[in-house]
Amino acid sequence: MSEDRPAPGTMRPRGRTERVRAAVLAATRAELEAHGYAELSMERVAEIAGVAKSTVYRRWRDPVGLLVELIADLSSSEVPLLDTGSIEVDLRGLAVGIHRFYNDPVRRPAMLGLITAAVLDPRAAQALHDFFRTRNDLAAESVRHAIERGDLPPDTDPIQVIRSVGAPFYYRMLVSHEPIDETVAEQAAAAAIAAAKAGAYTVRPDQKG
Amino acid sequence: MSEDRPAPGTMRPRGRTERVRAAVLAATRAELEAHGYAELSMERVAEIAGVAKSTVYRRWRDPVGLLVELIADLSSSEVPLLDTGSIEVDLRGLAVGIHRFYNDPVRRPAMLGLITAAVLDPRAAQALHDFFRTRNDLAAESVRHAIERGDLPPDTDPIQVIRSVGAPFYYRMLVSHEPIDETVAEQAAAAAIAAAKAGAYTVRPDQKG
Repeated sequence: MSEDRPAPGTMRPRGRTERVRAAVLAATRAELEAHGYAELSMERVAEIAGVAKSTVYRRWRDPVGLLVELIADLSSSEVPLLDTGSIEVDLRGLAVGIHRFYNDPVRRPAMLGLITAAVLDPRAAQALHDFFRTRNDLAAESVRHAIERGDLPPDTDPIQVIRSVGAPFYYRMLVSHEPIDETVAEQAAAAAIAAAKAGAYTVRPDQKG
Repeated sequence: MSEDRPAPGTMRPRGRTERVRAAVLAATRAELEAHGYAELSMERVAEIAGVAKSTVYRRWRDPVGLLVELIADLSSSEVPLLDTGSIEVDLRGLAVGIHRFYNDPVRRPAMLGLITAAVLDPRAAQALHDFFRTRNDLAAESVRHAIERGDLPPDTDPIQVIRSVGAPFYYRMLVSHEPIDETVAEQAAAAAIAAAKAGAYTVRPDQKG
């Protein structure tokens, strides 16, 4: 790991900080996989990571802090974003990626734990808000290109199209407690495209800005 | 209250049970309105209701038990279901009703509290599942009529149309932490109808049953 090699004359704080972070995240993943969010314990994570408890408390404060860090780490690469020139392919790919993300034994409890915490914890709510704003904005790039190609109405709100691909998964996981499967992914993408094409997600001039 | 009048020879257990229930639900509403779900305390609810703590613990066990009972009570009458002969009007009415429900200072924390609890508590998850199955089935009646009228494709899954009206609200409240407003309601209804008309919610023969 080249980041761990100290530059001449430095104390390599970055390397040590990064190693602690990596160990704590790996321990958090392992604990979530074994016991779920309800049992996530700062003490256990510190023990498994081989890091002083005081360090874990100082840097992450509580289980929410661990989840916030873990989710930023997990998801940056794990739901691939397509931009193929076909909005059908791109959104189906996004829906399948979300489906896979939530069929994973670590990612699902990590994200649902953060969502749960965020109902009451403003720090977790802000982390979720920022995370989805960034993610949805990246994913919306393919929608912007579809609008440019003339495949969707010119006043379409690209972020709203992306939100609507994700929404059915959260509804089933959190609200109606129904399984998510490939049919959900298929319908989520098909519905987002049909609604966008019909102009359901166009922004009126008075709603802009 | 005619229910409170004992029939000759009975111990009127129904009347007393109902009075305790009504007092505890009123106290739960008041506590949620004043302090939110995080602070919902069995002891405080018992005190405000003028009911023995032991009774509250025995009948409702914990704050989740109070929320389950409260939500069944709150929502049966509070999101009106239309069946006007126009699916556009019916679904817009449903979306506006959901929007109002979640702009209420008691209903919102009660339902979000139950949703939060349900991520980890199977009893709360079952209560939510049952509640939304019943509600969505009732709401789907207007979609079934639209299918019969030929306004939507014959193989449309009526429940899926109803789920899709609700999903955007939960996405914003729980996932992206964005405000819900009348535009969300308008788009939710318009998108559900457009997607349904385009056949995005049709069930393939192999997905039936």
